[in-house]
Amino acid sequence: MNIEDLKQHIRDVPDFPKPGIIFKDITPLLANADAFNFCIDQLVERVVRHDPDAIVGIESRGFIFGAVVATRLGLPFQLARKANKLPYRTVKVSYELEYGSDSVEMHVDAVEAGKRYAIVDDLIATGGTAAATAELIELQKGKVACFACVIELAFLAGRERLGERVIETLIDY
Amino acid sequence: MNIEDLKQHIRDVPDFPKPGIIFKDITPLLANADAFNFCIDQLVERVVRHDPDAIVGIESRGFIFGAVVATRLGLPFQLARKANKLPYRTVKVSYELEYGSDSVEMHVDAVEAGKRYAIVDDLIATGGTAAATAELIELQKGKVACFACVIELAFLAGRERLGERVIETLIDY
Repeated sequence: MNIEDLKQHIRDVPDFPKPGIIFKDITPLLANADAFNFCIDQLVERVVRHDPDAIVGIESRGFIFGAVVATRLGLPFQLARKANKLPYRTVKVSYELEYGSDSVEMHVDAVEAGKRYAIVDDLIATGGTAAATAELIELQKGKVACFACVIELAFLAGRERLGERVIETLIDY
Repeated sequence: MNIEDLKQHIRDVPDFPKPGIIFKDITPLLANADAFNFCIDQLVERVVRHDPDAIVGIESRGFIFGAVVATRLGLPFQLARKANKLPYRTVKVSYELEYGSDSVEMHVDAVEAGKRYAIVDDLIATGGTAAATAELIELQKGKVACFACVIELAFLAGRERLGERVIETLIDY
């Protein structure tokens, strides 16, 4: 299997979550054990280059890829979630959307000063959640080792929002 | 490490998500690579006894444990999500809560007739989501191999709601 083969397991769903958007559905990839495993191998190979001390998964598809990468590498796994989902005390960063704003939270004890965190998600689109998660880590004096995801929607320019931080993606559209 | 040691990594958070509820927070468990790995080993050992063809993870903490169990066993991974989160066509089952109702969905192509599905989540409380997910699988002519989770809140009697289906849990309160 090679990386471009992963595209055979990504389904285009038109008009989700709203009219005019073509959603990249990764559920066929998860449903194919060989493709999912290959995808994890590729993520692990890229993440490990940046020498992380822990993995951060972004709710909720980032939990899927992030948890497997963390256990493969024997690293701690931390969660970045939408507002009011984490039970303990949190730090929050808000970010702008096309209309309105959104926010992401981590527990106050999720980041240790000086440690390196690899953020994992399924996809980078406009990069809003990714950048807010990176800010959360840096606010708590952690370092962003890299942001790693399966799919990049390059036309949405999410990379720009992440600035100088390292980005690793497997396939792009 | 033995199973009761896992309790050292579960944090009680009072009054979440609402006053009077003591929430069992699994984020310290995820943050401890040895404990997380041991927990996965134990889940895998129990799930494999029931000979599943695929794993179903329940949104969103079930995605964390389910995805790792699926990749460890080399099995397909399918998602059960809250309403309107899955992009493709879905089958939905609603269930009663103390006040109001909720529902869970799976993609129409997530279940194959006759195949065995192990449902994975972090916790069983009242069993509403677990039972609805089991129904979704059975509605599509799949079989529930087992329901497996880390924590059982036995005083909430979730087992009763799952009827004759097999339940595997690691620790209970």
